[in-house]
Formats: sequence, structure tokens, C-alpha cells
Amino acid sequence: MPTIDERFARLGTDHAPGQEVRQALADEDADFRGEPISGTPVDFSHGDVNPTAFAPTPGALEEFVAGVHRGASQAYTEYRGDAGVRDLVAERLAGFTGAPLSGADELIITPGTQGALFLALGAIVNAGDRVAIVRPDYFANRKLVEFLGGVVVPIEMDYLSRDTGAGLDLGRLEDAFKSGVKTFLFSNPNNPAGVVYTPEEVARIASLATTHGVTVIVDELYSRLLYPGNTFTHLRAADIDADQVVTIMGPSKTESLSGYRLGAAFGAAHIIDRMEKLQAIVSLRAPGYSQAVLRTWFAEPDGWLDERIAAHQALRDDLLAIFAAVPGVRVRSPQAGSYLFPRLPRLGVPLHHFVRALRVQAAVTVTPGIEFSPDRTDSIRLNFSQNHEAAVSAVRRIAEMVDRYRADDGAVLAGSHGSATAAGPA
Amino acid sequence: MPTIDERFARLGTDHAPGQEVRQALADEDADFRGEPISGTPVDFSHGDVNPTAFAPTPGALEEFVAGVHRGASQAYTEYRGDAGVRDLVAERLAGFTGAPLSGADELIITPGTQGALFLALGAIVNAGDRVAIVRPDYFANRKLVEFLGGVVVPIEMDYLSRDTGAGLDLGRLEDAFKSGVKTFLFSNPNNPAGVVYTPEEVARIASLATTHGVTVIVDELYSRLLYPGNTFTHLRAADIDADQVVTIMGPSKTESLSGYRLGAAFGAAHIIDRMEKLQAIVSLRAPGYSQAVLRTWFAEPDGWLDERIAAHQALRDDLLAIFAAVPGVRVRSPQAGSYLFPRLPRLGVPLHHFVRALRVQAAVTVTPGIEFSPDRTDSIRLNFSQNHEAAVSAVRRIAEMVDRYRADDGAVLAGSHGSATAAGPA
Repeated sequence: MPTIDERFARLGTDHAPGQEVRQALADEDADFRGEPISGTPVDFSHGDVNPTAFAPTPGALEEFVAGVHRGASQAYTEYRGDAGVRDLVAERLAGFTGAPLSGADELIITPGTQGALFLALGAIVNAGDRVAIVRPDYFANRKLVEFLGGVVVPIEMDYLSRDTGAGLDLGRLEDAFKSGVKTFLFSNPNNPAGVVYTPEEVARIASLATTHGVTVIVDELYSRLLYPGNTFTHLRAADIDADQVVTIMGPSKTESLSGYRLGAAFGAAHIIDRMEKLQAIVSLRAPGYSQAVLRTWFAEPDGWLDERIAAHQALRDDLLAIFAAVPGVRVRSPQAGSYLFPRLPRLGVPLHHFVRALRVQAAVTVTPGIEFSPDRTDSIRLNFSQNHEAAVSAVRRIAEMVDRYRADDGAVLAGSHGSATAAGPA
Repeated sequence: MPTIDERFARLGTDHAPGQEVRQALADEDADFRGEPISGTPVDFSHGDVNPTAFAPTPGALEEFVAGVHRGASQAYTEYRGDAGVRDLVAERLAGFTGAPLSGADELIITPGTQGALFLALGAIVNAGDRVAIVRPDYFANRKLVEFLGGVVVPIEMDYLSRDTGAGLDLGRLEDAFKSGVKTFLFSNPNNPAGVVYTPEEVARIASLATTHGVTVIVDELYSRLLYPGNTFTHLRAADIDADQVVTIMGPSKTESLSGYRLGAAFGAAHIIDRMEKLQAIVSLRAPGYSQAVLRTWFAEPDGWLDERIAAHQALRDDLLAIFAAVPGVRVRSPQAGSYLFPRLPRLGVPLHHFVRALRVQAAVTVTPGIEFSPDRTDSIRLNFSQNHEAAVSAVRRIAEMVDRYRADDGAVLAGSHGSATAAGPA
């Protein structure tokens, strides 16, 4: 059994999104190439919720204030959340996902989707249990399993060499299930790659889970921000026992409500029950007054969501065009959400050095790919939910920095892969 | 190793404060004695933050709204919390506790003090570790240790048979430390008994911890609401290595800010570091906008705290007078905080039945003593931070219900113990 020191050594957060400020100055600063590139600082490690970028849903603050004035009943809800809000949200989520949902028994309101992920895994994973995790996927998934004493069984995803579907290795998933894995956790749309699982992929996951009695936790945080021409398939509406699925969503991304710390997990009642027991000792409840803000969720003004999707799509396409002109960069166009996960040409410095140089020299913060998969030392993740003009300018600076830091043979090697969105060798 | 089913069987919350609403109707309702007693419903399981009782600190909502308008920088703080707020709060907590404190390295803002407790224990306790826990103490302490796979080593507290001090069995504590216990967790003022540890008790705990290399987590949530004539001793200012102490406080009780979900843990930097790593996968951060509300903490208007203490003291004394007139009830006057933990005379029904009858027949919600100690099947806990008039009326109803439900020999048996605050046999 690992010691507590060993367990926390694996939980490093120095390179996690938003934590860059805690990094000490490093000697390698002396090795920076070229002069600083000026421009408006952009932090692509998370979305920008300022009015100049993507502001929170209209009416959110008003609902919060109404919650404060409601007083004790809103401050002290059941641990699983305010009953009235749960009923309201359950009805809307049932409509969105296409399967029935009871607000009384099948939904818990959590402190963000991070809270939902922790509680769901904490309710299922015992020390020694093996858990299937996608590579690449959300950076905390691996850490959650490890903190709980579980063993990660990685399932690779070939997201770059196709135009549709996630490219999950379903054969490998079946092998894992056959070998006794009883829990599978994945995000759809995938974070960081922005790809959406096809109906066939989701159906196959449902079928394998049914055959092998596997519980599936699916993080659909970004499923509302779906670009035109794409289809989203909710696992809970597929051919699978409702007792085997927990779905996680929240209003922190598309709706820019992260500052209120709200998420929701819904599905298997026996797991939701356990999640509430765990919530009682982890944080008691999602912030009481914040819960009132969920009344705005899926009830935004007419046209608000369409406009938000269109603005992100325009930004996505502008940024992809810049990356496409950089020799050796490969990036797939995201089908949903606001993440880009470009693979860079071979660099002459380690990825962490490059990411640091981006921040210090070019005022651009990105998240290194290895936060999402140990073998993605060649990729960076950008959350492009930013001010349009600033984001375009910042990605131009990334392009310039890639050119500065590429290995002597980098462009030729990476360019030789070829890709619809990658330019040829310089 | 326990299975996950066994682990969650020990995490029951049906009788936890605020969860009564989830209890199904039970057959024993048919066995209620007498008719309903009408009166304003009072929920003593938590404080009442409505304007008719104890409203949140003035200016709290205004700081929240200012945080929302500050935008992205307030929504996305470091995982350990906003740097500016941390500096502000650290300076005030250093002054309050009488020992220096660095906001940069020795403080983390958490989702409530519950969040702080979970993160602190999660940062220290490994599976199989033995952890000393006081009986009675806050209901989650035992559950936290058990969820983390630790082993509870109970330390009894004889709070009833004295007027000052907590009455912790310090000999037993020393034995536990000698036997290899490396973590000790306790609340001061004690929840549920409301007693404050003497300077001598705190000094002895510090000395024992130093001798045996024990890390101490002290929950001082209620230390600001100290009644005149009492002295509060902060462990972190005692003769103990700063690396061995984590102190937990928050504005949910005295300041009635529970709806914002805020707490703080401060002390040993290496433990705070780990707590931040854990927070990154548990809930990312305390709610961003809420963190701004901490700017009001320890900066309330002149006279506000004195007034709040005086109002609670008056209420405390009125309620104690009612209990004192009930044959067989024993209760110690709390030195701080707003908890009463009366021991009842022997009842003719199990405690859970009585607590349920109180709720259904008399519109009074209390928390059963066994949530705080497995042998306190004879006690109930009240948080008397309530509307004064309603609380007095509700405790009168409790008194009447005790008389209805007492065992035939209950009054005589319990009364024979004698106590300053207990009346003799009826």
C-alpha cells in the first residue's frame, strides 16, 4: 500500500489549469529564445467569464440574490440540494437527455462538476478496484482514481486520424471489462480533444457495460455547446440499465457560471444515495444560495444558446485557420465545447519549458498535454472561450513561439504525418 | 478490507442534521403518546439565518455582488483561494489566534468548515492509520476517519460533572499517543457540549503532541461566540511546533454565512499544500464569488459581535432555565457557541422514536445524541441560534414531551444523579 507521501506525490497541481501563479521562477528562464512578444494576456487554461468575453447567463445574479432573501430555507438545503430546484432541473435534464429522471431520487446538486466527479467515484471505487480511464481525458480523472486507491486501466483514443467519432479503442475497452474492470469513466464531448462519440460508439459502450455489469460515469459537461451538423448521443438514453449510469453536467462552461460552483450528477439512485452520504462529510452541500441560480439553467432567454454557439464556432474556425498555417501542427476541429488540443511539431525544449516560455514571453497561458495523458508531451490544451480579438492575437503569438522553439528537424518530421488541418513542411 | 457497501453502511445520514425530511413515514407513528402540541416550528438541527433570528453579517451580499462584477479573477482563483482575500484573512486570524500566519503559504479557503475537515484529514490519514477522536464530538469526525480507511481511537470527555474545562480524559489521550496514534482531531468549543478547553488542557494537549510527534487538527468554528467570563486558548499559540497544528474556522455559525459555503484551514504549510492538491480533485476551489464575502470576516461593524453574543447569552439562559425545571434532565451551560446538549431522563421509547415524535407531534427538530457519540443514546443536541420567542416556546414543548415519554422510573433514576442544572425527582 502506498504511503500518504507517495499518494500525494501523484497529485501534483503545479501545472494544473489556473495554478501557474504558484510556480517559482526557474533557471531555464535564462534559456528563453528571442524577445518578449507583446499582446493582451490570455489565459487559455479556463474560459473568460468577463463581459468582454462570455458573461454568465442573464438573470443568474438575480436568482442568487433572491436565494439570499429567501433565507434559511435556501442556506440549509438537503445535502443533495434544494428539493424544488432538483425537481425543476430534473425535468429539464430529462428532456435534454431523452430519458426520464426523478428529481427526488436520481439527482444530486454538487459543488461544481468536479464535486460530482469526486462524489461519483468516491461512491463506487474501493481500494484496489480497477477503473477504465480514457487517454487523453480530463486531468483529474486519473488522480481521482489514484486518491481513492484504485488502479487506472488506460484506454487509448485515436482522436487525430479521423473526422468523426472519438476513436476510442473499443476492443481494448472490451478486454478491460472482460478482465474484471467494473467502472468506466469518460467525458463526452472529450476534454481535451473536443470530439463527440458517435451513436455507434455510445451504443457499443452501452452494450459492453450491460454484458459485463460495468458502471459507467459519463461527464457531459460540454454537451450543450454542440456545433451545427453534429449529433450528440446521451448514454443514459441508450440501451443500458439506468442503474448502471451516472451522468454529470453543470453550468460552469457553456453558461459561464463557474464562480457559483454548481454541478449535477444524475442517474442510478443507489449511487446518488451514496454520493449524498459522502457529500455530508466532504462539503455538506453545494453552496445554498448558489443552488437558486440553477433555476436559470436550460431556461435561458430565446436565442441565447444559439448565439453563444455561433460566437464560439466563429472563434474556433479563426483559431484553427491560424494553427493550420503552422508547419507541423496537427489539430482536429472540435465538434462541441471550447477546447483545442493541438499537437505541436517536435520542439527543441521540453514541453513544460515551452509552456512556461509562452506564459512569460508571450503572455499566453495554456495547459500542457501531459495533464490529460502521460504520452501527450507534444500537445497543449486551449480553452478558447475568450474575447475573440484577444484569442486570435494570442494564438498568433503561439504560432510564432512554435516557430522559435521548434527542433531543427521538427517541422519536417511532424509535417510528414499529413492532416486535413495541418500544413505541410515549411 | 471493508467492501464499498460496508463502508457506506457506516456513513448513514438519515438522522444527520437537516436530513430529517428524507425519512419515510414509520410504523411507530401509531405509538405516539398524546395529541399534537401546536407552536411555531423550530429546527434546532442548525441555526436560523432569517432576519427574525440571526441574519448574515451586514455587507456580506454586497461583497458577493462586488465579486461577481470583478468577473473572471474572482470566479477562477487559485485552488487554495483568492490571494488577496487570503492575505487579508490571514492577518486577522493571526491577530485573533495570537500567532503569526502567512496568507501565501499557511492558509486555504475551503467550501465550508466541513470542506476544511475533509481536506485536512484526507491530507493526513492513510488507510489503516489510527486517529484519536473525542466522544462526544462533531458527528462527521468519526465518519471522515472511517471513509478514509482509518481506525477511530475514541477519547472520552466527562463534560457533565464539572463547571469549567472540557473534561477530556488526558490519560487516555497519552496512552493513545504512546500506542502510535499520530493524528488527533477535536473541536474547541466542543460540538455538541459547548464546553471550552482550559488553558491547562490545551497546554497538556500541546505537550503530549510535541512529545509523541502527533499532528493535531483543531476545529475552532465557534470560538468567536465566547460568553463573558470565559477564556479561550488557541492551540496554535501554545507551546507546539507550528508544523504540527492545523486550525479550522469559518463564518457559517457566529456570522450566519453558511449559505455562502466558506471555511478556512490554517497552519502547517506542508499540510495546507496537500489540502490544495486534494481540493483540486474534490471541488476545485471554494465558490469564487463567495470568497469575496470573507472580506467582511473579522471586520464587522463596531458592536456587532458583542450584540450577537449578548443575544445568544440571553437565549441560552432562558432555555437552560426551562430544562432545569424538567425532572431528570441534566445539561451544562455552554461557555461558547450556540449548542445545548441536554441528557434526558430514561425514556419509555428509543431515542430515535422520541426525536421523531418531537418533530411530528411538537414541530421541533433536534439531533439525536448518538450522532456525536455511540453511547449518547440519552441526549439530544439543539442549535439555539434561533428566533428567541420561538425557541423558548419550542423548548417548553420539548419539556412537555419529555414528561409524556419518560419511562415509569425515568425521573427518579436520572434525578438521583443530582446536578446544578437538573431538578430533583418529580
